[in-house]
Amino acid sequence: MQSSETLDLSLELLQQPSVTPNDHTCQDIIAARLSKIGFNIESMRFEDVDNLWARKGTTEPVFCFAGHTDVVPTGSLEAWDSAPFAPEIRDGKLYGRGSADMKTALAAMVVATERFIEKHPQHKGSIAYLITSDEEGPAKNGTVKVIETLENRQEKIKWCLVGEPSSTNTLGDIVKNGRRGSLNAKIIIQGKQGHVAYPHLAKNPIHLATAAIDELCKTVWDEGNEYFPATSFQISNIHAGTGATNVIPDTLEITCNFRFSTEVTAEELKARVTAILDKNDLDYDITWNLSGLPFITPVGDLVKATQQAIEKTTGSCTQLSTSGGTSDGRFIAPTGAQVIELGVLNATIHQVNEHVNVADLEPLAQIYEEILVNLLA
Amino acid sequence: MQSSETLDLSLELLQQPSVTPNDHTCQDIIAARLSKIGFNIESMRFEDVDNLWARKGTTEPVFCFAGHTDVVPTGSLEAWDSAPFAPEIRDGKLYGRGSADMKTALAAMVVATERFIEKHPQHKGSIAYLITSDEEGPAKNGTVKVIETLENRQEKIKWCLVGEPSSTNTLGDIVKNGRRGSLNAKIIIQGKQGHVAYPHLAKNPIHLATAAIDELCKTVWDEGNEYFPATSFQISNIHAGTGATNVIPDTLEITCNFRFSTEVTAEELKARVTAILDKNDLDYDITWNLSGLPFITPVGDLVKATQQAIEKTTGSCTQLSTSGGTSDGRFIAPTGAQVIELGVLNATIHQVNEHVNVADLEPLAQIYEEILVNLLA
Ligand SMILES: [Zn+2]
Ligand SMILES: [Zn+2]
Repeated sequence: MQSSETLDLSLELLQQPSVTPNDHTCQDIIAARLSKIGFNIESMRFEDVDNLWARKGTTEPVFCFAGHTDVVPTGSLEAWDSAPFAPEIRDGKLYGRGSADMKTALAAMVVATERFIEKHPQHKGSIAYLITSDEEGPAKNGTVKVIETLENRQEKIKWCLVGEPSSTNTLGDIVKNGRRGSLNAKIIIQGKQGHVAYPHLAKNPIHLATAAIDELCKTVWDEGNEYFPATSFQISNIHAGTGATNVIPDTLEITCNFRFSTEVTAEELKARVTAILDKNDLDYDITWNLSGLPFITPVGDLVKATQQAIEKTTGSCTQLSTSGGTSDGRFIAPTGAQVIELGVLNATIHQVNEHVNVADLEPLAQIYEEILVNLLA
Repeated sequence: MQSSETLDLSLELLQQPSVTPNDHTCQDIIAARLSKIGFNIESMRFEDVDNLWARKGTTEPVFCFAGHTDVVPTGSLEAWDSAPFAPEIRDGKLYGRGSADMKTALAAMVVATERFIEKHPQHKGSIAYLITSDEEGPAKNGTVKVIETLENRQEKIKWCLVGEPSSTNTLGDIVKNGRRGSLNAKIIIQGKQGHVAYPHLAKNPIHLATAAIDELCKTVWDEGNEYFPATSFQISNIHAGTGATNVIPDTLEITCNFRFSTEVTAEELKARVTAILDKNDLDYDITWNLSGLPFITPVGDLVKATQQAIEKTTGSCTQLSTSGGTSDGRFIAPTGAQVIELGVLNATIHQVNEHVNVADLEPLAQIYEEILVNLLA
């Protein structure tokens, strides 16, 4: 194994058991490196969450690397082949919690920035870092609060690269240039309790609701568009009955989630769900929770700079995608920033034996550096 | 309020807090009365359940009064207007747990029997009592075990009157001459867990099952017949999901119940449910529990004797019905006995402030006595 600056910094970060919301000095490690090359460091702690805002330069445009130092819990330690916070290389793979999501990307950002500044000390604009330790958790005191602070002092990000693991089969094969919206609903359907032997005296909310549920599951909400797959609907929970086999339950509770494209609004989805429930004459109560609006960064200077950097480094074309879960990009995009996500392979994130290809680390740093060159050199 | 032998014995029984399976001396009280008028008393205790088998006479045919001394729990005492085991008369109504289900009927049986024997000491055949203290509970060590004992010694009941509260609006308006069968199923539908953002990598068992559930709810299983209403299907429980809003659950669990007529067999119902699940390509596991076969006592000497007794006492006609829940009649009917159920109004059974009309008690004893006259005098 060749020695590598990106690998060395990755190992240092991976040794920190920084389970959400505990940063466990990761941001100090990053800040120390950035400080040495002229970054101004601001620690922004909100309640129990450490955040780092670092910026080199005072002029616009601002290119920002964004990411998180926190990792999801390890689960049962016995299931791991090596200790999750004692990073280990086996067969060309670096194992450890956070190796894919997303400490190696943080390391690659820092190394890329160091190299870029050494070669281009007089670069245009500014380079910034927005690092949180609450991306995997409630995400209430992390990126969203830092962005609020920046907005209040009218500090604007033009281009933002989030280091989330976007790659699927080979490094850089996928870049996320947007995310679907996420809308949750809790629906309580009211029936009337009774004995199964006297169904005419009761109203079984399960029986009343089946046609509506069937319709919700079969509805085509939209066809998606150039950037988004079709909006999807999933019921995550359904509950009725207290366990007694002879009692018709009084209520049915359903939790469901939309991942939606820009072809439909949250308000339209709400209206269509309500219409289906009403059409079936249901007595119901519905609570909505909009956890993220969809956002999209159309092909422009950030996307092009990224595509060119990937092709130059890997020799392969990249594909734009908006699939997958939400990310902190949803908090940054509404400020008007162009936001993309690019990182290592995501096959093992949040799993036991999370790992990444060691051979992908230096190329990732090269891609990040090349993006800086394309935009700020 | 006129004094009444039936009321007096009812009060004595209602003071016993005989919550299933605790008989709390009720059977002793009844046995003492029957013993005085020539009954042979047999206590049959099976595990924690007291049962009473009492018989006067050794010849056939055997007329048997059947019933239970146990009552369902009182629930919250604060909800009662008077203490559930301190029977109290207010506005012509006798309040107390078990007043309707079914201690007043037990009292009426005993008083009717005493009067009948006094007037007809040389009656035909035999009179018997089959009283359990486990009708409201698991019903494993009650009537079913007594019947087993009788069958083993070839002691046969020809006519059985179960004192369950069958009346709906006025005393004797309804006589139950059969009961529907009861068949429970637990169905576990297998899906594949996943993240709601990646539904194509998961299989949502709720979505997979909705069409089948809808079909089960809408199926007409039969049209019923002269004696039975149409077979009914009810889902009593449905559960999937662990509470997380972003996880597609791996399994869906459904509990359902058939109340079925003699137009369909349990085996046919099982085959039809299986066919619906198979047609929808579901991966499932199903567990069946047959808790009672349907039984019917066609119009014959017992039904006619009962109809005549009711009409003579109340001046009104009675109606035969097989609706409602299961009763211990399901254990007696398979021996070949004619079984009917006749008792007080059932409007408040198993509820707080359970009560019965005091004015119905003596007429019920008269009806019971008249049935004995019609069959054994
Ligand atoms: Zn992440
Ligand atoms: Zn009862």
